[in-house]
Amino acid sequence: MTELSRGGYTGKILRVNLTDKTTSIDEQDEKFYRRYFGGTALIGYYLLKELKPGIDPLGPDNKLIFTSGVITGTPCAGSGRSGVGSKSPLTNGWGDSQAGGFWPAELKRAGWDAIIIEGKSDKPVYLWINDDKVEFRDASHLWGKATLEAEQQIQTELDDKRVRVAQIGPAGENLVRFASICNDITHAYGRNGHGAVMGSKMLRAIAVRGHKGLPLANPEKVREVAKWLVDNYKTLSEGLTKHGTSGGVAMLNEASILPTRNFQEGQFDGYNDIAGPTMTDTILVGRDNCYACPIDCKREVEVGAPYNVNRKYGGPEYETIASLGSLCGVNDLKAVAKGNEICNAQGMDTIAAGNCIAFAMECFERGILTKEDTDGVELKFGNAEAMMLMLEKITKREGLGNLLAEGTKRAAEQIGHGASEYAMQIKGQELPMHEPRGKVALGIGYAISPTGADHVHNMHDSMFAVEGPPLEGLKALGIQEPLSPLDLSPAKVRMFKYVVDWRHFQNCAVICGFPPFSYEQISDLVNGATGWNTSVWELMKVGERALALARAFNAREGYTAKDDILPERFYQSFSSGPLMDEKLGKEDMQKAIKTYYKMAGWDPELAVPTAEKLEELDIAWVTEELEKSA
Amino acid sequence: MTELSRGGYTGKILRVNLTDKTTSIDEQDEKFYRRYFGGTALIGYYLLKELKPGIDPLGPDNKLIFTSGVITGTPCAGSGRSGVGSKSPLTNGWGDSQAGGFWPAELKRAGWDAIIIEGKSDKPVYLWINDDKVEFRDASHLWGKATLEAEQQIQTELDDKRVRVAQIGPAGENLVRFASICNDITHAYGRNGHGAVMGSKMLRAIAVRGHKGLPLANPEKVREVAKWLVDNYKTLSEGLTKHGTSGGVAMLNEASILPTRNFQEGQFDGYNDIAGPTMTDTILVGRDNCYACPIDCKREVEVGAPYNVNRKYGGPEYETIASLGSLCGVNDLKAVAKGNEICNAQGMDTIAAGNCIAFAMECFERGILTKEDTDGVELKFGNAEAMMLMLEKITKREGLGNLLAEGTKRAAEQIGHGASEYAMQIKGQELPMHEPRGKVALGIGYAISPTGADHVHNMHDSMFAVEGPPLEGLKALGIQEPLSPLDLSPAKVRMFKYVVDWRHFQNCAVICGFPPFSYEQISDLVNGATGWNTSVWELMKVGERALALARAFNAREGYTAKDDILPERFYQSFSSGPLMDEKLGKEDMQKAIKTYYKMAGWDPELAVPTAEKLEELDIAWVTEELEKSA
Repeated sequence: MTELSRGGYTGKILRVNLTDKTTSIDEQDEKFYRRYFGGTALIGYYLLKELKPGIDPLGPDNKLIFTSGVITGTPCAGSGRSGVGSKSPLTNGWGDSQAGGFWPAELKRAGWDAIIIEGKSDKPVYLWINDDKVEFRDASHLWGKATLEAEQQIQTELDDKRVRVAQIGPAGENLVRFASICNDITHAYGRNGHGAVMGSKMLRAIAVRGHKGLPLANPEKVREVAKWLVDNYKTLSEGLTKHGTSGGVAMLNEASILPTRNFQEGQFDGYNDIAGPTMTDTILVGRDNCYACPIDCKREVEVGAPYNVNRKYGGPEYETIASLGSLCGVNDLKAVAKGNEICNAQGMDTIAAGNCIAFAMECFERGILTKEDTDGVELKFGNAEAMMLMLEKITKREGLGNLLAEGTKRAAEQIGHGASEYAMQIKGQELPMHEPRGKVALGIGYAISPTGADHVHNMHDSMFAVEGPPLEGLKALGIQEPLSPLDLSPAKVRMFKYVVDWRHFQNCAVICGFPPFSYEQISDLVNGATGWNTSVWELMKVGERALALARAFNAREGYTAKDDILPERFYQSFSSGPLMDEKLGKEDMQKAIKTYYKMAGWDPELAVPTAEKLEELDIAWVTEELEKSA
Repeated sequence: MTELSRGGYTGKILRVNLTDKTTSIDEQDEKFYRRYFGGTALIGYYLLKELKPGIDPLGPDNKLIFTSGVITGTPCAGSGRSGVGSKSPLTNGWGDSQAGGFWPAELKRAGWDAIIIEGKSDKPVYLWINDDKVEFRDASHLWGKATLEAEQQIQTELDDKRVRVAQIGPAGENLVRFASICNDITHAYGRNGHGAVMGSKMLRAIAVRGHKGLPLANPEKVREVAKWLVDNYKTLSEGLTKHGTSGGVAMLNEASILPTRNFQEGQFDGYNDIAGPTMTDTILVGRDNCYACPIDCKREVEVGAPYNVNRKYGGPEYETIASLGSLCGVNDLKAVAKGNEICNAQGMDTIAAGNCIAFAMECFERGILTKEDTDGVELKFGNAEAMMLMLEKITKREGLGNLLAEGTKRAAEQIGHGASEYAMQIKGQELPMHEPRGKVALGIGYAISPTGADHVHNMHDSMFAVEGPPLEGLKALGIQEPLSPLDLSPAKVRMFKYVVDWRHFQNCAVICGFPPFSYEQISDLVNGATGWNTSVWELMKVGERALALARAFNAREGYTAKDDILPERFYQSFSSGPLMDEKLGKEDMQKAIKTYYKMAGWDPELAVPTAEKLEELDIAWVTEELEKSA
């Protein structure tokens, strides 16, 4: 089956219909892969072509797409990721999310670039993909089980410990709107609630085993890029290896951009208790990685009674540290680690979960929610017990947890009494742990991201750092000077546009942003894998195209420029800290967003690419799709 | 003086004031060179900053800029060119033109990236640049002399045969509006009339001798690119070496795109008499090259009495073969060779000169001009004697020649009687020898080019070829499919936009388009020369920026979208030949141009980049310059 001439992509997409339990194969050619690559752009192609506007995200008409990119599975750090996309039950619009681990490369080794899940099973099932063989298997016995237990059960019954599993947990089964899907237990497609979509389809897991080699057009070229990283990561990524993604907590706190107490503050007095170095010195028992990556940014922690945290559920990353920690005013690292375990075991996005709890805490402190609403829980900032308890309640949809399982936007609407003011969400998705008041370009990203608030498509070190390798690297895109993190000038919008197009490309590739490759190295890697003669130009345009497709999807669902807004809180100054005297101007932000539209060739009202821009992006067919929005 | 750390650019620009005979030095940093590179973009920077709108192109306020690029003079084929820019006496707008030869690399070896000529001398002078030493020397004894004689005289009096000379001839002295400047006799900056600008300043020549090494940041990388060409040109550029640029005359004729009898036809019955292979078999006595280039596309021809063509004046290139040949209905190759010699000796653009004569011939045949106007010359198509005679008359501004020396636009306005219909010019500049009816995207290029009708910034093989290496190469820019030469769809506009941005980059680099390097190889060459970490993205944006600067210059001079038009003739069908049943639709063309504006982020009425696009191109300062146009 391996087609050597096609380089690092197989050109085969598996279609799975859960309603009638059938499968089929889509085969696409080089033109398709150069245009849509994989990840976000491939998702955009299929969702726009195949979903009707207005469908229920949790109904059988939604489709769930797992997709690697053309370099996924190459023996090079960063290439072990996949993307997942569907219409999001959080936003009723575009949803895509990425995760690493080992499942993506395994899928590639089984010969598949992507899986499109359609329809809905009438009982719990899981998929068993063994190279070309695809089996629908009963999952009734897995339903309700924690992810670790379910994975072990699957590996046991398939009698192969090397089977890789992507799955939902009970939160996904219970249609928690921010339920996640996880690869290999600890690598979560966290954002946008794809776990609920998978749950609505009664699909518990996708087990994969591949035995095919991945054809590389120019293995030497791939090895060269891979080797560079191996030779340099110890210096360049030292902090990431040592303390994981939360190594920078102290720095963020100092700069007043550590989201604290539901974004009311940017500094957390207990920051040091939850910082990466503290974790390293206390509960860390191991480091983990993704396929082919030596950086080992993933954590393994162990905590004894009463928390009893199992290292097999990994350890909290920065997003989790902040969302379950500072955002909830919690400085108990062990409780945060337990919260992380709960989310991984139950299959739930730690970012949204933390936001929901922090939102509820603020409502409680302001008297909008009372003990009556919380089943007697003293739901105050800093209450670690309450945080862990609420996580359990959300996954089980118990009491207030049932309301919070809908996400902050819907919960606030039901609560009323001005609660929406404290729901830190955009388009229905909760904010990640990055403070736009201290890196203002990210505010544009939050506002325009088709996923709702999201940092994976939108954030870049250059938005905060004013010197160092990320800035040096940006010269290759023609960005020659660092700009203040507080700068919202058109020059900043330009920088934002370039890095965001690249970030979108990374999510098409689907490559990790952590290995510090240059733009040219990624281009070399693509060439090595595929035998194409690509350039950074072509890759940047893939990213821009991906964003265009996603925006078009949202436009068809009724989203316009009016929805590209930030929560009002971000236009309020902090009451203390170094940013106290800085104010993010609402008009400045609105102006920057309008400038972005014009720079990007978007219609200023509809906030989607004009017909000419769609032509320029080689996706003229989207113009027709946009007409369906009316 | 050599600054090794700066790679293949010295960062030194020589300013020469002819009025008071002073010189000074501009030093620019890496940021400047990455933004403006050299060539067209560098010219744009200085002309926009330093010329006031409305100045007389032939007055002392005009400036004449000679500029190499950051890779000029590297030991790699294609890197032996320079650009020249000034306000054009043909268009009263933007003017820039490129030429190869050996003078550009010599200037670089003398330590200069560019020369800005200001003011006006009160008597003929020439400049003598010997590394850092710059001397103003009397040129009274050279005034009126043919270029070969003048060059030999300069080399003799400077006592150095290796002195390289860029100069005008008598046509420039006489302010023929399409006078050229030539490097090393045979390499002409032909378009836009810079020779007249130089003549108006009484500057006959710039003699240069350099003794400095060119610092290369990574010589190995440069050598690798250079070696690839040396290893492959015999196969890839075989036709160009063998027959020069006119090797394709038969193919063009067959496709009905050989401009004939003032663009009335696309096929010429005498095509074979003037084709490259005929030249090779008859009058060719040698092949010549530019600095560091093995391709040898330049010709040397020799013709005996009565023509007496001296091989030191080279031989006709395709543009000359067509403009003095088929365009004038002349199938006498020896006469064309003589015409070429006259133009090189007198310093005159062969394209414009041929157009002027063809225009006059059509007027004569239509009775708009009579023998009274022509001093008795039977100025009919096919009259080779008349063609040669008129060239002489133009350079001397004698009789009808004095009128034609103004260019077809001004001549037609003076002639009246509907003569303008037969003036094949855009914005005042005559059309090159490429037929937009058979490669329609070029029509957009002619219309939007800030230089007026021009092929050096606008043409690309992909506009005509539907397969082969140029198309394969374009995949690196995301252009995956060839399009019919007659296609004017938005997809074609997209292809046009990408190749035109790249063509503009080539004229910033200032690199020749003939060596078949890939986009990545050029990026490697730039990195090797400079030590930057550039990408094709950054280089494409340099090209787009260059075009934006030039359009802004024109807008300030009053040009708007209304001026982006083609001569009406191109909307008429040919009366015979394979394109007979094809018609270039005027509305289709207007629509394509509008599509281009939108794709490029240009204001649809002013036809210049919007403020946001200027920001995106990192030249926000231009917005302010545009306000000066009112």
